[in-house]
Amino acid sequence: MMIELKPIGTIHTPYTELKGMPIQPAGAVGVRGTIDVFKEYRAGLKDLGGFSHIILLYHFHHSRGYDLEVVPFLDSHPRGLFATRAPKRPNPIGLSVVQLDRIEGGTLHIQNVDILDGTPLLDIKPYVPEFDRPTSIRTGWLEQARKDVKDHQADDRFR
Amino acid sequence: MMIELKPIGTIHTPYTELKGMPIQPAGAVGVRGTIDVFKEYRAGLKDLGGFSHIILLYHFHHSRGYDLEVVPFLDSHPRGLFATRAPKRPNPIGLSVVQLDRIEGGTLHIQNVDILDGTPLLDIKPYVPEFDRPTSIRTGWLEQARKDVKDHQADDRFR
Repeated sequence: MMIELKPIGTIHTPYTELKGMPIQPAGAVGVRGTIDVFKEYRAGLKDLGGFSHIILLYHFHHSRGYDLEVVPFLDSHPRGLFATRAPKRPNPIGLSVVQLDRIEGGTLHIQNVDILDGTPLLDIKPYVPEFDRPTSIRTGWLEQARKDVKDHQADDRFR
Repeated sequence: MMIELKPIGTIHTPYTELKGMPIQPAGAVGVRGTIDVFKEYRAGLKDLGGFSHIILLYHFHHSRGYDLEVVPFLDSHPRGLFATRAPKRPNPIGLSVVQLDRIEGGTLHIQNVDILDGTPLLDIKPYVPEFDRPTSIRTGWLEQARKDVKDHQADDRFR
């Protein structure tokens, strides 16, 4: 069974190439971008402006193929793909929580953006702490490495 | 441009019909489920066991079509679709943060599950606070309603 998706908009950011990009929103604090939502979907943006943060689902459109073990940016050991956020995945869907500054017509102004310019947007969901913020977290192999996440940038290993 | 996805596993839960389901993991505390990851993807589960929580992306496989305004479970007013978590969306992808209890072979034992039995799994990502947990949150129309989220269950409005 195949599932077919189609872009509902385009994400614009200062990052025109993978190399040098922040690897997650935490390393992209203050980086601004915009989202152009296609005309036929704009009515669905009503009421979204009241949310400070939104979850973007998007297509890792430069990813081709995948390996089930990868060496993540934050590590020097191969890790199981699903224990990482690497873009080359069986279903190349990216997820970022970004700050929503304002909406003008079909344009969303966002901040803390770790996404490549021109990325096709698939979905927008409101970020809701009761749904999305569990407590008593453990983060496995990332436990040490995550302290350094703000200082890391992408190289071209996931091209 | 169309994007094609294929399931990498199946999510099993106690919920065989939409009616009566919790509407989000916060209302599903203690509800257990399992995920069977298909054999060809299991090598990607390495290192995942160290994470207490995972983000599941899945196909809302019972959703057909969508409206750009919906009356959410938590409200009595029509809201813009992208300001809600309703399952009928242009790209019907669901997102839940669940607790990972343990992994046995290709089976993940999970908790706090708000997902329909038999749901096709598309991706697993580790939950990492630095990536996924913003601060200074506002939640717009949900601000009042979210206090009640634990007591709400689904009806059949999104069939």
